[in-house]
Amino acid sequence: MNIIDIINKTKRQTELSADEIAWVVDGYTAGEIPDAQMAAWLMAVRLRGLTERETSALTLAMLRSGSYVDLSGISAVTVDKHSTGGVGDKTTLIVGPAVAACGAAVPKMSGRGLGHTGGTIDKLESIPGFRTELEHEEFISVVEKNGFAVTSQSRELCPADKRIYALRDITGTVDSIPLICSSIMSKKLAVGADCLLLDVKYGSGAFMKTSDEARRLAGLMESTGRAAGKRVRADVTDMNAPLGSCIGNALEVREAIEVLQGRISSGQLYDTCVQLGADMLELAEQGDNDSVNRIRKAIADGSALEVLRRTIEMQGGDPGVCDDTSLLPQARCSYTLRASSDIRVNSVDCEELGMVSLILGAGRLSSGDRLDPTAGIVMECAPGDRLAAGAPILTLYSSLCSDFSEAAVRALNAIDRSACRIAAY
Amino acid sequence: MNIIDIINKTKRQTELSADEIAWVVDGYTAGEIPDAQMAAWLMAVRLRGLTERETSALTLAMLRSGSYVDLSGISAVTVDKHSTGGVGDKTTLIVGPAVAACGAAVPKMSGRGLGHTGGTIDKLESIPGFRTELEHEEFISVVEKNGFAVTSQSRELCPADKRIYALRDITGTVDSIPLICSSIMSKKLAVGADCLLLDVKYGSGAFMKTSDEARRLAGLMESTGRAAGKRVRADVTDMNAPLGSCIGNALEVREAIEVLQGRISSGQLYDTCVQLGADMLELAEQGDNDSVNRIRKAIADGSALEVLRRTIEMQGGDPGVCDDTSLLPQARCSYTLRASSDIRVNSVDCEELGMVSLILGAGRLSSGDRLDPTAGIVMECAPGDRLAAGAPILTLYSSLCSDFSEAAVRALNAIDRSACRIAAY
Repeated sequence: MNIIDIINKTKRQTELSADEIAWVVDGYTAGEIPDAQMAAWLMAVRLRGLTERETSALTLAMLRSGSYVDLSGISAVTVDKHSTGGVGDKTTLIVGPAVAACGAAVPKMSGRGLGHTGGTIDKLESIPGFRTELEHEEFISVVEKNGFAVTSQSRELCPADKRIYALRDITGTVDSIPLICSSIMSKKLAVGADCLLLDVKYGSGAFMKTSDEARRLAGLMESTGRAAGKRVRADVTDMNAPLGSCIGNALEVREAIEVLQGRISSGQLYDTCVQLGADMLELAEQGDNDSVNRIRKAIADGSALEVLRRTIEMQGGDPGVCDDTSLLPQARCSYTLRASSDIRVNSVDCEELGMVSLILGAGRLSSGDRLDPTAGIVMECAPGDRLAAGAPILTLYSSLCSDFSEAAVRALNAIDRSACRIAAY
Repeated sequence: MNIIDIINKTKRQTELSADEIAWVVDGYTAGEIPDAQMAAWLMAVRLRGLTERETSALTLAMLRSGSYVDLSGISAVTVDKHSTGGVGDKTTLIVGPAVAACGAAVPKMSGRGLGHTGGTIDKLESIPGFRTELEHEEFISVVEKNGFAVTSQSRELCPADKRIYALRDITGTVDSIPLICSSIMSKKLAVGADCLLLDVKYGSGAFMKTSDEARRLAGLMESTGRAAGKRVRADVTDMNAPLGSCIGNALEVREAIEVLQGRISSGQLYDTCVQLGADMLELAEQGDNDSVNRIRKAIADGSALEVLRRTIEMQGGDPGVCDDTSLLPQARCSYTLRASSDIRVNSVDCEELGMVSLILGAGRLSSGDRLDPTAGIVMECAPGDRLAAGAPILTLYSSLCSDFSEAAVRALNAIDRSACRIAAY
């Protein structure tokens, strides 16, 4: 085989064989295909696409480049969940315990946040003492005993994905649906859960800006997962506004606990969690056994919170945060933006709010950056709200107490609003 | 500026500014932009195209990367000619002397052949003693005294093109019309002739397979040349069959001399030369002063042959070849393919015939390969001909006397023919 022929085939939309795709992935991972040729192929993929069959073959070739996670020590049916990344997305902290409370096991390998989206590992590390780097045996043991554990992604999974992603990152080839699919699915297949629920987000805070794109990615991930023999389902969910009111690590843990405490039992965050949880349960049980109500009940009766409490305890964290969220680290400074006149909030630029939380210290621009666990934003409004002059729009939090001005200006500009008249009554 | 932003713009068909394009070319030539990012950009250009303005800017940026040829020492109007490469294309050896005989100056910098197409420098070097590496002063002096000189391309012209071409060659990005245009035009603009005639070939032996593609390239090269202040015209000519009957270096010099001797005064080779010569003269004189007939006359009255004879002499070659082509090197072996039954020749695979002449020794696969000046093919038929059983189809020549079988089989397969009935009479 010859890399130039392969580049030319993709360039001319001629389907590659699985052998050809495996040859590219293996050759690149082994350093035999130079970056320049791989970059040209990736751009051809970005602009000409791959077929479903090619995407499956790419996923499997990337999967085979590394080791697998052995979940055979877990007796319950295992359900993994993956979100394509959003702003304020703390669903794993709510859905994982709720699904575990209903009897399925949720062994979650998660990543850290990058850019405007957060990562579950970062959020959990804001809980005092919580350990996210579990040895394999400990991870399996927590899941087996308690149904839910979270550990950071092993470095040995999918080395091909790591190399290819690093190249995509500098060559403008991140935003390719087949490449996104194979990157996610190769890592998810390497974690050998029986079932996989994918949460594909669209909107201003997501990587997929339209629901059409999100549906295409969802369909491709489902077909790729099924071709690999996995029970898989992809939900398409809205990320045009932050999910819930909190953005930032400790702030999001607090909000997740408030949902599990029953203090938040409506709204988009709650509804999304119920939907995702019910779908995970249906996948695990291969049928709808009143799953929506069972998830609602696991939240309402405190059993889901109990799972979270035990997971925190078993992973070294302070379980007291489940009763008293003030034990979570608190920001030293805050700044509240208020409406200067009566306004209607039309929409919010969700990605920009993610970037504001990043500059406050809640996120990282490059993978080595350190985080401020207390930093973030609490939204005091949602699209459609009318605010009277003087009412709070949002509050910025940070422990660095640096100048809030850049964050405040950018946050204000992220709120699309128009003047309105609010009658005093 | 940021290379990822620039890649993304081209990927999304957002026009780049001239400054952005110059930044890419300068950065890549200086080694500051890595191959991988340049390769991704080139593939985005291959698949999304560049506008006329972008192509001009790319051409000028590549031009500015190196030095220029100073033709100010030549008093006559200077006309350069460039062919996009064909099989059996010896037009420069005919047209250059004919145009010079009509009063314009033809300072020709030429390249060596690569792949299935030949190069003028290789052809001239088959003349015993002929020197193709002239110092600048000698080159100017031959043109000034005799109107026509040929020298090999200076290494200092367009170093950016050399680097970019080497990368295109390994990344499947050679076949991009804007990239072909900028590569040719940057080198042609670096040779400071007043006028430039472009011969854009299409057909089975050309890089452009269809006349549509050739016309697009021709139009883009005209607009790029004009934007740079050059008098430029692009002719689109047919390369579905070899131009003339000879392919191979000494064989093509022989055929060119036969045209200038008046022994070949019709057919596609002759007609193409008259057209190209007349167009060069019109460019130089900025009007049609009976140019077709003047080119015909310069050939018919021997004055063009006289120019070639003096150029050969001034460049160290044996001018006797102009009277006696048997002084050119002759192949030690030959093999004639004959019709095994009555046939009609429908068409020929011109690129494949170029490849056959290459394997006989007339061309090179990579730039370091050595040539056999005597090797090549003489066609004994043309598309449309009917040949009786036993009639020659073509003759293969080589001095290596190696096995002709591969060349013979490939040559025969390159002739698309059908059985026909030729009545004996």
